[in-house]
Formats: sequence, C-alpha cells, structure tokens
Amino acid sequence: MKIIIVGATGTMGRHLAAAFEKEHEIIRVASKSGDIPTDITSAASIENMFRQAGPFDALISTAGPSYVGPWKTMTGKEFQKGIDGKLMGQVNLVLIGQHYINPKGSFTLITGALAQEPVLNFASASAANGGVEAFVRAAAIELENGIRINAVSPTVIEDSPQYFPFFPGDIPVTMKQLEYGFRKSVFGANTGQVIKPY
Amino acid sequence: MKIIIVGATGTMGRHLAAAFEKEHEIIRVASKSGDIPTDITSAASIENMFRQAGPFDALISTAGPSYVGPWKTMTGKEFQKGIDGKLMGQVNLVLIGQHYINPKGSFTLITGALAQEPVLNFASASAANGGVEAFVRAAAIELENGIRINAVSPTVIEDSPQYFPFFPGDIPVTMKQLEYGFRKSVFGANTGQVIKPY
Repeated sequence: MKIIIVGATGTMGRHLAAAFEKEHEIIRVASKSGDIPTDITSAASIENMFRQAGPFDALISTAGPSYVGPWKTMTGKEFQKGIDGKLMGQVNLVLIGQHYINPKGSFTLITGALAQEPVLNFASASAANGGVEAFVRAAAIELENGIRINAVSPTVIEDSPQYFPFFPGDIPVTMKQLEYGFRKSVFGANTGQVIKPY
Repeated sequence: MKIIIVGATGTMGRHLAAAFEKEHEIIRVASKSGDIPTDITSAASIENMFRQAGPFDALISTAGPSYVGPWKTMTGKEFQKGIDGKLMGQVNLVLIGQHYINPKGSFTLITGALAQEPVLNFASASAANGGVEAFVRAAAIELENGIRINAVSPTVIEDSPQYFPFFPGDIPVTMKQLEYGFRKSVFGANTGQVIKPY
C-alpha cells in the first residue's frame, strides 16, 4: 500500500512512519522537510504535494497546528491558528486529495479528546477538533469509489510529556495505542468514524 | 434584561426578537440593517458593535453563513465560508464580547444537527457546527464572573421550507421549539451545553 503521512517529522508521524514502512511504501510529508515539504495552510502547496506524490492508497494526517494560550487575552487571530491549521489544513488535504486517491483508498485525520473534554488554554484546538470530527462524518457520505475517511482522537500522548501538566488526570495514550487507532482506520473497513484508541 | 440578537433580521432572529421584546430590551444586530449593522467576519466590526451596544446581559447569535454546494467540485475557499462565518464569526462574538458582557451574563450560539447527522452538500456547515459545539464546551470552563455559554442545535427549521428537500426525513423544528431552546440557555443556569430543542 502506498501511504502518505502528513506531519511525518512530528512525534506521532515518526512513530507511524517507522511502524508502517516495514510493509508499505511511505511518503513523508512535513512542513519543512520529509520527502515533499508542504505547507498545509496553502491549497496550492497541498495540490503540488499530491501531484508529486502521484496516486496513493491511504493518507494519514497527524498535522495539527493550533494555538495554546490564556483565554482572557486570546484574540481571534490567535484562535485562528487552529482553524487554519488543524481544521482547514486537514479539510483541504481531503477536498484536494480526493482527486488523487485510488479507489477504495482512505483518509485518516487527527483530532483529540479536547473536542469533548476541554482543558484550559486549548480552546482553539477544541474547536478545530470538533470541526474535523463533524467534517469526517460529512465527508464520509460524500466520498465515492469506496473511499473512506475517519479520524483518530487520542488524549495527550505518551511521547509528549511536555503537555501532561495541561491535562490533569488524563491517562496518556501510548504510542502503540495511537498506532492501533490508525491501523483500524487504514486497514479496516469503517468510514465516518471517530476512533478513540483507548 | 438587555439582550443582543445577532442575525436579528433572519428567520430565527426575527422570531426570537419578537418573542423576547415584550419583556426585555432587544438590540438588533444584522449584517446590513438592524440597530447596529455588523459584519461578524470582521473583528473590528464586532468590537465596534459591542462598543455601541454597551454592557449587556445576554447575546443570542443566529448568524450562520456557510457554503452549500456539491462536494466533488468544492474548493477550500468555498468551504471556508462556513468556517469564517458560522464558526470564527461566532467565536469572535464571544472572545470580544466577554470584555463587554455583565457578570452572570450568557452567550447562546447557533449550531445544528448537521454536526452529528450530515446531509449531502452541507459539509461546510457540518464542520462549522462541530467546531462551535466544541468551542462552547471549551469556553464554558474559561469564562469567569458566572458568565455562561451554550449552543442551540435545531434540525431544519419550520419557517425555512426551502431547505426541506436537503433534509429528507428530518422532522422540522417549530419556531416555538427553537424559541424554547434559546429560553433554556438565556434564562436557565446551564453552561457548556448543546441544547437540542426537539
């Protein structure tokens, strides 16, 4: 299977690329490096990435830039970071990618438990996650040729301990659990689902 | 109670203004008319509106511009209409409005069943709704001084029959049911809730 991993140099992307490259062809996409450097906030950059990558079977996105900071002074411009990045960036990967993906292919996007269980300082990511989850349900009934779409929604992840203080009481999702979540989407048959790998 | 209704000239806004003006002071905000014409996609326009309105007790938003159209040719730019309008427009009403609202005041935003139950052609609105609902949960744990925030999520509404063909099998929410949803948020005590008035 030919799998594009967007966010391939991040904590999640690196783990997934290493796990899947044993049996699959992996194309690493990241903002400043990887096989095809891509700015997911630019539709032109995404289009260019798909043109270079050629037809593919699965796209995994772990790319979720958003704004983290105190609520009271938060501006719309700061908030927008999660909307442009984690929400519209991932939406554009699908809107554009649908014209390049092989029949029966799949898109798997990243959201997070913040959509349902907010924590302080992360309102921008919460909104982006909620938007992505609703988008996945909407896209699932639109995509044709057996193309599927799901989201994986972890809590804070094991290999990002710098975020633990923001998520009191959240049991970190292990990298292996996260991988299982993506496996379920990419190699399973469901569509329109938000997969919680815990 | 002094209540700002954003989207006051729309189908929902007109009904709510008429229902609440018997007992409350209503400030009508709309894109091109009303007491204070306001472009909710502009933070400067929103700030100006709050400055003119002065301190208030409740803000009701029924303003939900989004994009409706066929999926296969949908561009990110078209999709963005719902993100800029229904999502970021309403987010900015809260981020900015928190500095003008009275203690124990409330924000009530509009979403819709599309967040959970998509229909064809409305992916932009689905994503916006999902984003607003997650935002409401996040904002509820951030707002101080007893300020509350909820969303009202109807299905297709009774007085918008032009949308019925897009929502096969959805039982339209009556204008009275919709009004009850907003009453529950504005005059109740809950916060962080998505109220389904049906």
